Parts: sequence; structure tokens; C-alpha cells
Amino acid sequence: MAITLDQLNAMSAADFTAALADIYEHSPWVAEAAAKQRPFATLSALHEAMVAAVRAAPAEARQKLITAHPDLAGKAARAGALTPDSTREQLSAGLDRLSEADYARFHQLNDAYKAKFGIPFIVCVRRHTRDSILAEFERRLAQGGTAETDTALGEIFRIGALRLDQRVSAPDALPISGRLSTHVLDTHSGRPAEGVAIELWELSHDGAERLIVTTATNRDGRTDAPLIGGRPIPKGVYELRFFIGAYFRHRGVALPDPPFLDVVPIRFGVAEPEGHYHVPISASPWAYGTYRGS
Amino acid sequence: MAITLDQLNAMSAADFTAALADIYEHSPWVAEAAAKQRPFATLSALHEAMVAAVRAAPAEARQKLITAHPDLAGKAARAGALTPDSTREQLSAGLDRLSEADYARFHQLNDAYKAKFGIPFIVCVRRHTRDSILAEFERRLAQGGTAETDTALGEIFRIGALRLDQRVSAPDALPISGRLSTHVLDTHSGRPAEGVAIELWELSHDGAERLIVTTATNRDGRTDAPLIGGRPIPKGVYELRFFIGAYFRHRGVALPDPPFLDVVPIRFGVAEPEGHYHVPISASPWAYGTYRGS
Amino acid sequence: MAITLDQLNAMSAADFTAALADIYEHSPWVAEAAAKQRPFATLSALHEAMVAAVRAAPAEARQKLITAHPDLAGKAARAGALTPDSTREQLSAGLDRLSEADYARFHQLNDAYKAKFGIPFIVCVRRHTRDSILAEFERRLAQGGTAETDTALGEIFRIGALRLDQRVSAPDALPISGRLSTHVLDTHSGRPAEGVAIELWELSHDGAERLIVTTATNRDGRTDAPLIGGRPIPKGVYELRFFIGAYFRHRGVALPDPPFLDVVPIRFGVAEPEGHYHVPISASPWAYGTYRGS
Amino acid sequence: MAITLDQLNAMSAADFTAALADIYEHSPWVAEAAAKQRPFATLSALHEAMVAAVRAAPAEARQKLITAHPDLAGKAARAGALTPDSTREQLSAGLDRLSEADYARFHQLNDAYKAKFGIPFIVCVRRHTRDSILAEFERRLAQGGTAETDTALGEIFRIGALRLDQRVSAPDALPISGRLSTHVLDTHSGRPAEGVAIELWELSHDGAERLIVTTATNRDGRTDAPLIGGRPIPKGVYELRFFIGAYFRHRGVALPDPPFLDVVPIRFGVAEPEGHYHVPISASPWAYGTYRGS
Repeated sequence: MAITLDQLNAMSAADFTAALADIYEHSPWVAEAAAKQRPFATLSALHEAMVAAVRAAPAEARQKLITAHPDLAGKAARAGALTPDSTREQLSAGLDRLSEADYARFHQLNDAYKAKFGIPFIVCVRRHTRDSILAEFERRLAQGGTAETDTALGEIFRIGALRLDQRVSAPDALPISGRLSTHVLDTHSGRPAEGVAIELWELSHDGAERLIVTTATNRDGRTDAPLIGGRPIPKGVYELRFFIGAYFRHRGVALPDPPFLDVVPIRFGVAEPEGHYHVPISASPWAYGTYRGS
Repeated sequence: MAITLDQLNAMSAADFTAALADIYEHSPWVAEAAAKQRPFATLSALHEAMVAAVRAAPAEARQKLITAHPDLAGKAARAGALTPDSTREQLSAGLDRLSEADYARFHQLNDAYKAKFGIPFIVCVRRHTRDSILAEFERRLAQGGTAETDTALGEIFRIGALRLDQRVSAPDALPISGRLSTHVLDTHSGRPAEGVAIELWELSHDGAERLIVTTATNRDGRTDAPLIGGRPIPKGVYELRFFIGAYFRHRGVALPDPPFLDVVPIRFGVAEPEGHYHVPISASPWAYGTYRGS
Repeated sequence: MAITLDQLNAMSAADFTAALADIYEHSPWVAEAAAKQRPFATLSALHEAMVAAVRAAPAEARQKLITAHPDLAGKAARAGALTPDSTREQLSAGLDRLSEADYARFHQLNDAYKAKFGIPFIVCVRRHTRDSILAEFERRLAQGGTAETDTALGEIFRIGALRLDQRVSAPDALPISGRLSTHVLDTHSGRPAEGVAIELWELSHDGAERLIVTTATNRDGRTDAPLIGGRPIPKGVYELRFFIGAYFRHRGVALPDPPFLDVVPIRFGVAEPEGHYHVPISASPWAYGTYRGS
Repeated sequence: MAITLDQLNAMSAADFTAALADIYEHSPWVAEAAAKQRPFATLSALHEAMVAAVRAAPAEARQKLITAHPDLAGKAARAGALTPDSTREQLSAGLDRLSEADYARFHQLNDAYKAKFGIPFIVCVRRHTRDSILAEFERRLAQGGTAETDTALGEIFRIGALRLDQRVSAPDALPISGRLSTHVLDTHSGRPAEGVAIELWELSHDGAERLIVTTATNRDGRTDAPLIGGRPIPKGVYELRFFIGAYFRHRGVALPDPPFLDVVPIRFGVAEPEGHYHVPISASPWAYGTYRGS
């Protein structure tokens, strides 16, 4: 159950600190510092206060906050020794489902990273897929130490914002959500296509694929809920599959066997986890088109 | 090396019969009968003469021709005991790469078919994929005996036409060829897209996929040769994959990472093995469309 | 200024009748009859009560209501002798801008109609363009007398509903409105096209065209208000013109002179005045597409 | 009747000169000089020899060639005092159909041009529409004298090439032709659309429009001949009109009245008179798309 902002504003400093102790990994002092800035009119103000507390802290405190983070796909994760938040986050990117080769790759990157920077590699996992974490890992391994510390802190703030967003209910929303939506237009009959089954898959470079959502279009040709909403869209490559052969057959359109178009796959990349991706199709049994809308 | 029609016309009847002995499975009498109709001005005339010879033969001869055919994916195939033509044909549809489950399925269908009709199941394999053979098998098991005998003969004539087409060079072509072609239009710069890598895959219901062709577009946005031409397009489901992300990156267009469109898959079914399928795309880095042309 | 439903409910019967006297042409008795059914919770209920009053009236009263309507584009209109409502309605379809030939055509149709049916031709003009009124005129001239009386009454109810909708403000809306909207997607840069000038023209069979709206897209690629909304879309043929050449030039895209695409015209017909017509384009400087959405 | 290159090669020098005397306006000396370079294996070689003769001539001769050209839409044209070639050329761009305002505009530009450069304004009219001539006129009025003399000579060579192309038949073709073609794909039934009526119009900035071609699609969805071919496409703005409403109605597709799509106008600009413009549409009764192909 989420706690409300009003409740947080009304608490004793100790209760407030306890309630938000784990927003920053093993660092309740961030919440403690923010408690003094109450009341907060918005969740954004609370988030900013926590960010400011980290920035205002002595360098050693910040360093300790950084090193308090666990390795990605590391031994602690395997041993179940992460904080509940970290556990959920690492699960979200499928880091619990790594092959031995992937695990070895993470292990190697973690070691190289620590050897170079002396800190664990921190990334806001909810904004990523396994593929994009590996790409990010390599990109960041190549940059200088000062830039990397800034990047690591930025990721910690993103993690904090996402944890706050899940923990606290407030009138405003933090700008942490992306949205993926679709629409199916039937150009054979000139109306929105109702009842088209849709699957959303996450693809990996190694050919693995993971089913994210199964849904169907309503009478407006949309899905009742966005395919992904209220959270970042993990950076990566996706495939929408539209079962339009079954749709047209159901409408009584004569189709060859096999139909020219049956399952239409639309493969696309997401580079902005907080972006709005509208990926519609307009289709007849013989032609279709798609584009990135917003 | 193909033999020419002129050479066939000039041969002794015995040589002619020997040259075309295996056009009809284990039935040199078909060639023998056709030899008397020489000279043939066209390959079509030769083909028609062989068809007429089969139709004019006594019913028992036709029945013997039918039963001379091997089982599909049967024990003879496994044991390497087929005629060279039958071996090549069964290879073309991947019948040599069946899983144990598939092999069992074929075995069961062959048995059911023989129990019902008393003849082996005959299909012109070069017009099919493994998936469509199984679909055809089930469709034909459901029909009546007389219709099925006609269907089997029709398939034998198709097999004969394809074998003739490969064996004999002539001024005319038998209507046995389909054509699959594509085109890539770059709507970002308003010209044909040159140098786009393309793969053609054959897909199976069980998720297996087989790479058929790897090619790239020329300066007209076409491929130098059709993706499939000069032969039937096996009935089935295919996927063209267009590597347009690499194309646009190479042209200096700024793309996000990952790009919105990278590999564009176009999945389509072929129901007419002798049809012309033109499956082009027009694409920018953000939108694309396709249709069945001809 | 619109009167509210509450005010109408609270009035004396005489005031109520006076306020709605002209909803039905020269027939205050309709309002008078409806007054007794008060209070009305919704505008729909009021409208239904007036319809029911007409239906319940003696046949002669209904006949009198019908004949109380003026000719379309008739002498009374030319002489300025119509009721204010009828005047506005006939203006809406451009019946004040008829050529002498058009005027003669209306005169001839009016005469033929009266000779056949003995009543004036009644049509809910706000649902029509000049072209579609003429088409409707000819269609109805061809039908039988009983069907035509029903049709005429149906049109009177439509006229009444539209007059009520303009006169009375209420919590509910009568189902009299269509909506025409658009959207411009820039497939060159993968985002909604902002600042595209758009014109909406009404076209006539004789080549005449009338500018209905000039507007431009906002940052969502939409127009701030629908192109047509809150009223029926007159049945007819329209052309949207999108000035995308100027848009792409403004964005710094290199274009030839003249550009391949400059003003993109999308010509479409509206057959359902109460329908939702969404007519978007997605365009690069070299390609575009459109469809009927909703 | 065209003369052949062989005939030209075999003539006396005097006859050759007489035959090609008017390829360069009032300047038979160009042909006379080229005569000495015979025989010519190709039309290109003949053209290049005439160009070389002009370039090698004394400056005064070149100046005289330039000033031998008539004014565009000038008094000589109105009085019928042009050479037959110039008359046909000025007709091709509709310079005989100018309004008084246009005529005055040309008069004014001619005067300004002569005052600045001392020569008549020369442009290869067959590559232009009235609109593009006026745009070209203004563009060239703004440039310096030396550049302008080069431009004028370049235009004379283009005029000469086009006159040669029409006068002489040869195995090779000069690169003076553009091509405008189209194709209609029916995405409702997945095949080329046969029997679609098509009009090609040339548009002017002042709203005037001129019908260039009326044709229809054949069973491949193409037109039997290119819409424009074997000559330059005059630089300008065009509109193709596809009568797809009639096409779909004829095929028995149920359409509303009026249909959503009836006449589909595709408006496009031609900037390269020698370019290949393929402007196809793919259409259902509810959606269509187009692009510049080649």
C-alpha cells in the first residue's frame, strides 16, 4: 500500500525517515535530511529535496552511498542477499534468467568496471533490458572517472525517483513514465479494427524473446490500457505481433490459404524510456503500414 | 547438362525413351508412348504428349504408375532407396530434416492414407514446404476416393512437368515457375534504396526458420535476380528481413540507439506456387509500408 | 444567448410556448403540447416530447406543419420573407449564392415536387451542401407519396433538433453533431508535424470551391479544435490541403524547386453528417499516405 | 519525316548544311562547320560536333547566334514572325495562351533583361511550363553577365539537342528525355487495379489548369505508354487524378454516397525535366498512399 504525501508530511521525523529509509540504498540519512524540509506540496518537491540532500552531503557520504549498491547480476543477487527493492529491480530486466554465458559476461564487466573505477556499476535497471544494460556497461566502461561518478549519481537519482513513485501516492506524477500504445485501422472496411489479438515481445540480440503483454483491440481499434504505461519502457528492441489474418477471416473476408498477411510483426527499438511511442498499423489483407507516432 | 528438344526429336525411339525414362516414376512406358508423337515443336507439346499417354493408358497401368511412387518421408527415403529425382524433391522441402515427432506424424498420415485409398500419398513436393505438405495431407485424407485419384494424377503431371523443365532445354517454358521479388524505396530521400541487405526466411508453425536467400538491393532498389524465380515458390509462410537501420546509418542519417527501425520483418504467405509475388517496402527511419504487388 | 433547460422547466406554459414557438416552423402548438410534459430532465426528453406531440396531432395539423415550410431557394428566400431560422439554415448551404442556372434548377425541382406531392420539399439543410441537396431532391422525387411524407416529417424532426440544440443549453447533447479532424505525422523526422498550414475546402460538381477553415497543426500534429465539430458535417465532397512543402523547408530539409510535394490535397466525401471523420496524413517530402480513421 | 544519320553522312556538305541549317537559330554556319567532321557514328557525336563548332567560333559569331534568338512571348511571336521551330517551342509551353497580364509581365522582363545583358532571354522552352519560365527569368535576371552568357549558351545547346532529336533518326538517343509513369495497386483485393481512369493536369500558380493526358490502367495496373516520355517533362507542378471511386464501384465494392474516396488527386512538382518520375498509388476505398519512385 502506498503512503500518502499528507501522511508523510504529518509524521514525526523518525517515522518519516523510517518510511523512506530504503529509497536510497542502505542510506536512511538521505530521508533524514529531507525530513527537515517538510511539508512537501508535491512528490517532485520531495524528490528534489532528497536529491539536494545527496548533493549537499560530504563527498565521503556520497561515495559510501555509491558503494552501498550491489553488483548487477552478481553473487549477492544469486544468493538472495539484495534489498527487496534491488531484487525486484534486477528481476524486471530478467537478470534472474541469465544463461551461464551471460552471467560470466556480467561477472567480467563488473570486475573490469570495479578495477577501473573502484565502485560497483550502477544503472537504473527498470529503464533497461538485458541487452541495453550490456551496451550501457560497455559505453560507460569507456568514459573517464569523473564523468562516470556523475553518471552513477544520476542513475541513483533515477532509482530513487522510481522507488518514490511506487512508495508514495501524491497529486503529481514524477516524469518517470513512458508509454507504448497502438491502434489498428482496417483499410479494407474503413473503420477501426476491433478484436485484433496483439502480442508484445521483447527481443534480445541472441534471438531470445520474451512475451510482455497479450491483449486485443477494442471497438476504437485501441487497447483498453497502454501496452506499457506508468513506468519507463525498458530501452531495447520489441516486436508487436498483430493477428490480422484471424481478424479478417472472422469478418468474412475471403483469404487464400495461407493468407498473404496473417501475423504482422512490427519490430522497433525504444531509445527513450520516458518517451511516448505510438506504433499503429493500418492494414488490409494485402497491405499495411506503420509509423512512430506519439 | 540439359538435353535440347532438337536432340530429343532426332534420337532413336529407344534413346528418347531412355533419356526420359524417369520423368514418370519407374514408368519408361510413358516416354515410349510419347516418342511416337515426335517431332515436338515445344516443350509444352512434349509435356502434353506424356500426359496424354498416361491418360490413354489402361487403368491398371495408371494404377501401377501411382503405386510406383515412394512414401513421403518414409522408410525408403530414410534408407536412401529413392530414385535420384525423388531424393532431390524430398530434400527440397526439408523432408530430410524432420524431427522424430514430424517423422512419426508423416508415418501416421502415410498409414492412414494407404488404409483409406490403397495408394501412396503423392504430392508435387517442390511446390510445398513441410508445413503445407502436412496441411495438404490432412485435406486430401478427408476427400473421396475418386477425387483423390484425380488429385494424385494431377500431382504426378506436375512432378513430370518439373522434371522435364530441368532435364530439357527448349525455346518455350512450362508454366511451372513462380516469382518472388522485392524493392526498397527510401522515402526519406525520395529515391530507390541501394545496398540494403535482405534476408528471405522460410518459417514453420513450430517456430523453426530456414534462411533461403541473402542478398542486397542494387541502385534501382531491386535485387539483381528475383528472390525466387524459375521454379515454383513452395507454398508456405516466409519472412523478408530488410536491414534498413544499417542502410540509413550508412547514409549519414542520425538515428537513436537503438534505432526505431533496424531490421524490418515482412511476414507473408504464399498460396500460389506459380504466382508472382512482389513484396516491396517504402521506408523512412520512422515509417514503412508494404503491399502485395505483382 | 441560450436559455437553460431549468429555466424552461420553471416558466409558465405560455412563456415556454413563446420561447420554443419557432422550433417547429410557424407551429407554436408543438411547444404548447410539450409544455404539459414538463419537467424535462434532458434535452433529449424535450426533443422527444415535441416529436411525440407532432406524431400525436391530427393528420391535418401535421399536414399544415409540413406546408408551413418555405421552398428551398424559392421566391420567399429571395424576397427575404423567411423566418430567421429558415434564413440562417438556407444560408448555411450557400443557397443564397446560387447561379441563375442553379436557381432555375431549384425552381424546376420545386415545381415538379409540388406537382407530385402537393407539399413543399423539406430537407434539413444544415446536413447538406448544395450538391447533396440536389441529389436528395432527385432521389426523393422518385419515391412514393407515403414514404415521402414520412421522409419529410423525419427532416422536420431533424430541423427541430438542430434548432433546439442551438436555443437551449442542457447537460446532455442531442446526437446531431459530426466531427472532422486531422493529424499530420512527419515520417522524415518521426514526430508530429507542428505548424503545418491546413485549408479545408468544400467542392462542388461544377468545379466551384469554398474555403471552410484555415488552420495549422499544433505540437501534437493536431488542430486545436476539430475542423468541423458541434454540428453536422454537410454531406458533400471536401478537400483538405496540407502545406507540407513550406513545413519541411522551414525545418531545413533540402528540397528541389519546385518541391516534389508542396501542397498535398486530400479529397474525400462525407456521407454521414453525424459521423466522425478523422483524415490524417503521414508524410515525408517524398511520400505520403492517408486513411479514414474515426 | 526524320532524316537518318546515314543519309546525313552520305550527303554533300551543302546538302548536310541545308538539312541542319535551322538547328541553331538563323545560324547555318554551325552545321557547315560540323559537316567537316563526318561521318558521325552516333547522334551524340553529331550533337557534340555542333556544340564544339559553336564553342570554337569567334566571340562575335557566338554573340550573333545569341542575338538571333527571338523574344519569348514577344512581338515577333504575336506577329507570327518566328522560325517554325521557335513557333512550335513557344507553343509547347502555352506562351500563345497568355493573358494580357502575363503578356505584360513577359514584356517587362524582356525589357529589363535586355537592358541589363544586351541580349534576348534564351531558355529551352520545352523543358518548362509558363510558371517555371517566369521563375527562371527572375532567377537569371539576378545573376552576373558572364555567368548569364554561359547559361544562355547552355540553353542554346539544349534547344539544338532537342531539335536534332526530332529531325534525325539514329541508333542512339540524346539524354534529353524524362519519363513520367504511374501504377495503381488495389489494396482491397491485393492485385493491380485495371481500368482506372487517370488524368494528368498541369497546374499554374494562378489556379489555371491544363489537361495533358487522359488514359487508363491496363491489367498490370500501369498505363500502356508513359504519361510523358521521349521528351523532357516541363518543369512545373502537376496533378494526377485517379478515378478510383468508379473503379471500386465497378468491381462491386459497396461504397457510401458520396464515396469516401472518389477522385484521388496527387499533386507533385517536377524539378528535373530529364528525370524519371514514377508516381504510383496503392489504394483501398478508404486509404491510399503515394511516393516518388523512379
